[in-house]
Amino acid sequence: MADAGDYEYVNCIGSFKFKGKKLASEKLFSKKEILSGAEKAGSAELPPDWVLDFFNQDKYLKKMREASLLVTKKRMAASVKNDQLIVQAVNNVDEIDKVSNNLGKRLREWYELYNPEFSKSIEGHEKFTELIQQKTKKELLKEIGVGEEETMGAELSKKDLTPVMDLAAGISSLFSLREKQVKYIEESMKKYLPNVNAVAGSMIGAKLLGVAGSLEKMAMFPASTIQLLGAEKALFRHIKTGARPPKYGVIINHPFVTNAKHSEKGKAARILADKISIAAKIDYFKGEFRGDDLRKEVEEKLK
Amino acid sequence: MADAGDYEYVNCIGSFKFKGKKLASEKLFSKKEILSGAEKAGSAELPPDWVLDFFNQDKYLKKMREASLLVTKKRMAASVKNDQLIVQAVNNVDEIDKVSNNLGKRLREWYELYNPEFSKSIEGHEKFTELIQQKTKKELLKEIGVGEEETMGAELSKKDLTPVMDLAAGISSLFSLREKQVKYIEESMKKYLPNVNAVAGSMIGAKLLGVAGSLEKMAMFPASTIQLLGAEKALFRHIKTGARPPKYGVIINHPFVTNAKHSEKGKAARILADKISIAAKIDYFKGEFRGDDLRKEVEEKLK
Repeated sequence: MADAGDYEYVNCIGSFKFKGKKLASEKLFSKKEILSGAEKAGSAELPPDWVLDFFNQDKYLKKMREASLLVTKKRMAASVKNDQLIVQAVNNVDEIDKVSNNLGKRLREWYELYNPEFSKSIEGHEKFTELIQQKTKKELLKEIGVGEEETMGAELSKKDLTPVMDLAAGISSLFSLREKQVKYIEESMKKYLPNVNAVAGSMIGAKLLGVAGSLEKMAMFPASTIQLLGAEKALFRHIKTGARPPKYGVIINHPFVTNAKHSEKGKAARILADKISIAAKIDYFKGEFRGDDLRKEVEEKLK
Repeated sequence: MADAGDYEYVNCIGSFKFKGKKLASEKLFSKKEILSGAEKAGSAELPPDWVLDFFNQDKYLKKMREASLLVTKKRMAASVKNDQLIVQAVNNVDEIDKVSNNLGKRLREWYELYNPEFSKSIEGHEKFTELIQQKTKKELLKEIGVGEEETMGAELSKKDLTPVMDLAAGISSLFSLREKQVKYIEESMKKYLPNVNAVAGSMIGAKLLGVAGSLEKMAMFPASTIQLLGAEKALFRHIKTGARPPKYGVIINHPFVTNAKHSEKGKAARILADKISIAAKIDYFKGEFRGDDLRKEVEEKLK
């Protein structure tokens, strides 16, 4: 039997052998070993005090600090979850909406020097941007029944028209970027938040998730908070100034709410938020899929 | 000789022959004729009162209204000038700057789930956007000396990485759109505002033009206004709250001002604005090119 001072110890930085309470040999772990959890191979029992004292040396303390940093970083990396990716994507779609709206306004102002009548005949930026790239001024004027000699727009040389069309092409590619991102959100929602997806729809569900910040938070919110997510401005205005409280946030655009009679929109929002809140909890705790039933329950109650 | 009632008259809608103060024949102009100024072929003298009375009939009044609308529209079309196109382009470059900055921030937030260390190592959005598309995470981490096992970023599947890279590609195309528009502005400034271009430089000159709104306005402004164009916010704050008045607006970024000693920046701005103001007047009234001399005069005074 080994004498009292013989001791083997494994911690997060390596494995150590002691003889007569003095270090006999040490094997420090590589980064890889640290990350693969080599420590766990060691004994689970607490070491005697003199061993803990032994590690109270700068070089070991430094190593331990490095090792725990490494492990913490790895854990942070592992904590990135699919809901975070959806949050990023949906926030980005919001940003693209703002951005393409602003650039769209600029495009119109510029293009209206050339063909104001056509710009004024069409509302949506997307359709407008598409058409002016596909058709000539002459064709577009003809479509809206304005004679070429009647337009208030100036003739522009090709050189002056090119930057306008470049801008239009830029905006178009933002629109198709948006389309791709929406598709990604739809697929991810179906996969990772199937219940929320079934009740709220993918974009509204993703927007709720985006405002909440994470699925965990969304699952913890009461239904009344879900109902108002996205109406923070109006809510704080209500609290501060006593203005009327908001009845709905992001879910105002859900067909169940938009299709409800004006007097029943509030009720529809409340019922819908109830079920979305349940759906979020099921998705967070990885319960069985009940989304379709939940949606039907909302439909029933709104009949 | 024709009797008293015989009269021929041409106005903006057609040519008319009268016999005994009664209409004998009329030929109404086509739109084309109206626009080509067919009216001017007629007599310049004022017609007798009975002729003017004759045209006081609904059908002629309506035609006259149509004809003047047509001519007005044409004149508006002709009034679109090159300075307006530059104003549009420079305002658009400003918008692209804002937009790509906002999207750049979103891209970073998203990408940082994957590779935070690299994102934090590089400041400019443009370079960042370019590099993450060109190189793998592994290569980028190596460049900044971070081991693969140390990164706090999560591993992302190709499916989850694609929308991030799509966004990066979208931002890159905005940057190249900006480049094209800047080139267009440079060429246009050289051609249509050569003096302002020589003294202020193309982008600063164009920005001044953009804030002024037109070359006419810019030419009419006193030098002190040119000096403060783009500092409207600070100016109004000064007027309202008595805060310190601004010393310079857009021209703060001109090398003559940025390179001046701190205590002389105000003086440099004033001298520069003086000459830009002269340059704008020369460009507006289509005077001879004196831009190089004007710039040299500023340089002399700042020595």
